[in-house]
Amino acid sequence: MRQVTIDIKKVKELISKKALKSLRTIIQDQHPVDLAEVLEELSHHESIELFKVIDFDVALEVLAELGSEKKFFILTNVNPRYAVQLLNEMSADDLADFLGELPEEKKNIVLSLLETREQSDVRGLLSYDENTAGGLMTTEYIAFSVDLKSEEALNRLSELAPDAETVYYVYAVDSMHRLVGVVSLRDLILAPAQTPIGEFMSTEVKKVKASMDQEDVAKLMKKYGFLALPVVDDNDVLLGIVTVDDVMDVMEEETTEDMLKLAGSDEKLDTQASSPWMRAKRRLPWIMVAVMGEIISGSVINNFSYTIKALVALSFFIPVLMDMGGNVGTQSAAIVVRGLATGEINPASLGKNVLREAVVGIILGAINGTLIALIAYIWQGEIVLGIAVGIAMAFNLTLAAILGTLMPFLWHRMGHDPAVAAGPFVTTALDIIGLFIYFTAATWILKA
Amino acid sequence: MRQVTIDIKKVKELISKKALKSLRTIIQDQHPVDLAEVLEELSHHESIELFKVIDFDVALEVLAELGSEKKFFILTNVNPRYAVQLLNEMSADDLADFLGELPEEKKNIVLSLLETREQSDVRGLLSYDENTAGGLMTTEYIAFSVDLKSEEALNRLSELAPDAETVYYVYAVDSMHRLVGVVSLRDLILAPAQTPIGEFMSTEVKKVKASMDQEDVAKLMKKYGFLALPVVDDNDVLLGIVTVDDVMDVMEEETTEDMLKLAGSDEKLDTQASSPWMRAKRRLPWIMVAVMGEIISGSVINNFSYTIKALVALSFFIPVLMDMGGNVGTQSAAIVVRGLATGEINPASLGKNVLREAVVGIILGAINGTLIALIAYIWQGEIVLGIAVGIAMAFNLTLAAILGTLMPFLWHRMGHDPAVAAGPFVTTALDIIGLFIYFTAATWILKA
Repeated sequence: MRQVTIDIKKVKELISKKALKSLRTIIQDQHPVDLAEVLEELSHHESIELFKVIDFDVALEVLAELGSEKKFFILTNVNPRYAVQLLNEMSADDLADFLGELPEEKKNIVLSLLETREQSDVRGLLSYDENTAGGLMTTEYIAFSVDLKSEEALNRLSELAPDAETVYYVYAVDSMHRLVGVVSLRDLILAPAQTPIGEFMSTEVKKVKASMDQEDVAKLMKKYGFLALPVVDDNDVLLGIVTVDDVMDVMEEETTEDMLKLAGSDEKLDTQASSPWMRAKRRLPWIMVAVMGEIISGSVINNFSYTIKALVALSFFIPVLMDMGGNVGTQSAAIVVRGLATGEINPASLGKNVLREAVVGIILGAINGTLIALIAYIWQGEIVLGIAVGIAMAFNLTLAAILGTLMPFLWHRMGHDPAVAAGPFVTTALDIIGLFIYFTAATWILKA
Repeated sequence: MRQVTIDIKKVKELISKKALKSLRTIIQDQHPVDLAEVLEELSHHESIELFKVIDFDVALEVLAELGSEKKFFILTNVNPRYAVQLLNEMSADDLADFLGELPEEKKNIVLSLLETREQSDVRGLLSYDENTAGGLMTTEYIAFSVDLKSEEALNRLSELAPDAETVYYVYAVDSMHRLVGVVSLRDLILAPAQTPIGEFMSTEVKKVKASMDQEDVAKLMKKYGFLALPVVDDNDVLLGIVTVDDVMDVMEEETTEDMLKLAGSDEKLDTQASSPWMRAKRRLPWIMVAVMGEIISGSVINNFSYTIKALVALSFFIPVLMDMGGNVGTQSAAIVVRGLATGEINPASLGKNVLREAVVGIILGAINGTLIALIAYIWQGEIVLGIAVGIAMAFNLTLAAILGTLMPFLWHRMGHDPAVAAGPFVTTALDIIGLFIYFTAATWILKA
């Protein structure tokens, strides 16, 4: 792999010296993605100077890769005519995403710079929920009439290609712009010159409604290995396409969300942007819920104060009981959350999955229960302690596997994100129940 | 979206009635991915009957989607000549993946059915580690000499296209088969007919070595939005290409691994395949480590038996202390693990990240420490208890944020998977330290 060879220090130095020629040489032939990375590292003032020496075509691609803050700064600080030119050449979905992230006032500044046609495209895209197929799609697709001959289609393609997001699929539409078929560029090249598209197109087109959730769109594209997927309205009229690169971003986003929720946090990965205070605030609600839950755990122990006074060693095993339950519960929950996300677990198979995890829980519970009972007995020389700890551990791990599986499943069924129901909630519930079983067993045995 | 309309019950019924004509009608025009799903649901005997009525071209694609067990059964139970035909038309990378999953004996049966040329391709692919670019790549790419004219290239493309994995990039090689450039199908269509590829190709080709880790390959392709990436040896000789669909699978695999490791488990998502015993065994080592850790937590409490006897209410706050530390630590760890995986966190910025998380930890610690101190005081009417719990909580959450960030970072730096260092290890370490601070503070204050 070619290494990224842009030396940021050197770039900063050249900018301060206004050595534009050397600057141009350094950035020549660099990938737009790498240039965007450099721009993000530079100060606002420096980035404008660098941006000015980038060629128009490359600048367009660089712009598409920039964060919205930097993008807005650059567009409002280069020559206004150049900004207008850039904006009107940007792809409609990138523009819509960009505008969606700007506050109202800035949004209007940018919109005012757009040509009428671009403006209506972008406003159209902005009207969809950003988490749906409509919010994800671009309007820069290629669609031809079913009657168009393959040779002519290839010719038109050459003209249209520079503006289209992907030329790898060409859609066939009827006179009402309803989607009726699809041909790949491959089919088009292979087809005899005079054959109309309608004769060799595939009529089995997978397509999605504009309102479909972006996660479902991503799953569908992954399952069938599509590079692009057409988006239609209720009458099958073609509205746009979703491309594989956007879908990869969605997959990443959704997975990050799942992972952080599973860890009990509404945090985002915008580690650079937000203040520690903001970050703490996002995590606080989850922690407060857990505090309340664990106060209940504490009051369970409170109810057994006499038992603890009689046998202080009982308190030595609170940590291992709590931690084990939490571990097993989180393991089970992670499997369900991830399995539902990748489609490897069928949402309809609740009973089967819970049953299977319950068996795993019983095995883990039996092994660890025996182990911990032995440790307790050997360590403290109290048979009572061994039995109570062993029983509580065995019960708790079985329950942990069941609850850990059941909760995200049920939450998913009620139409919520399963990751939320996992993690902290399951752990806290298990702590309360586990401690209750433990002390009840101990009190019982001590009395007997 | 077109619904999957294959009624499995109906299919089973038609198979048992041997109503092949009706069977053929039902599966006609169905997507290979959907047909593969149906085959996986059927019994071995039924699936052979259904497979026989699928057309050759579709059957090939269906085969590519099947799990290795079903695939092996079908290939060894259809007409041997048909099996040979199918095998020799399968793409080399799919074949290599399939063979990699088979036990030695079965592998040899399949290899013996392959033609010599296919065999050497597949053996070549099998020689790479399956987690590297070499293990991921396919040899069915298209490469032309730099001297070939664009028109001729397009013509040859039409002949080669059906066998190639992707025709969206065409690679340009010199006389030694060294990679020197790339043209997209789009460039080829747009170029004047008589221009040699060398004149309009891009010479800035992103490429990877065969030994590169698959996760790095996936990151690179995602970053630059490539649909395919060429793989070369140390002399830049083109060996194969990695395509976007394989990379999407890698992303999913790696993320699943991260998520389950973060939850403290070596589990896999093969929920259908493995027995509960196997599943329990995979989780057991992690749990055992945690048991040992929590026994240390228990012995910390043991050292403070006298303090607990003096003030039993101290034990009521063990759950909240332990749970909070674990929560905050896991949150911080999840952010680092995910940030490193997506590239949003720079592995070099250890100090900066730890510092920022420490501030978040201090904020969370101060708020929750104060809250829990108040609760303790109001609930138990003991000022000592309030102060001890508050101090321990504040310390513990700060430490949790620091350790949760630091551990996966360090682990990553030592060349290991950061997800392993997160989760259970951090939680257990925090429990031990947290309880120690708590009881030390309480003993101190009680003495004073």
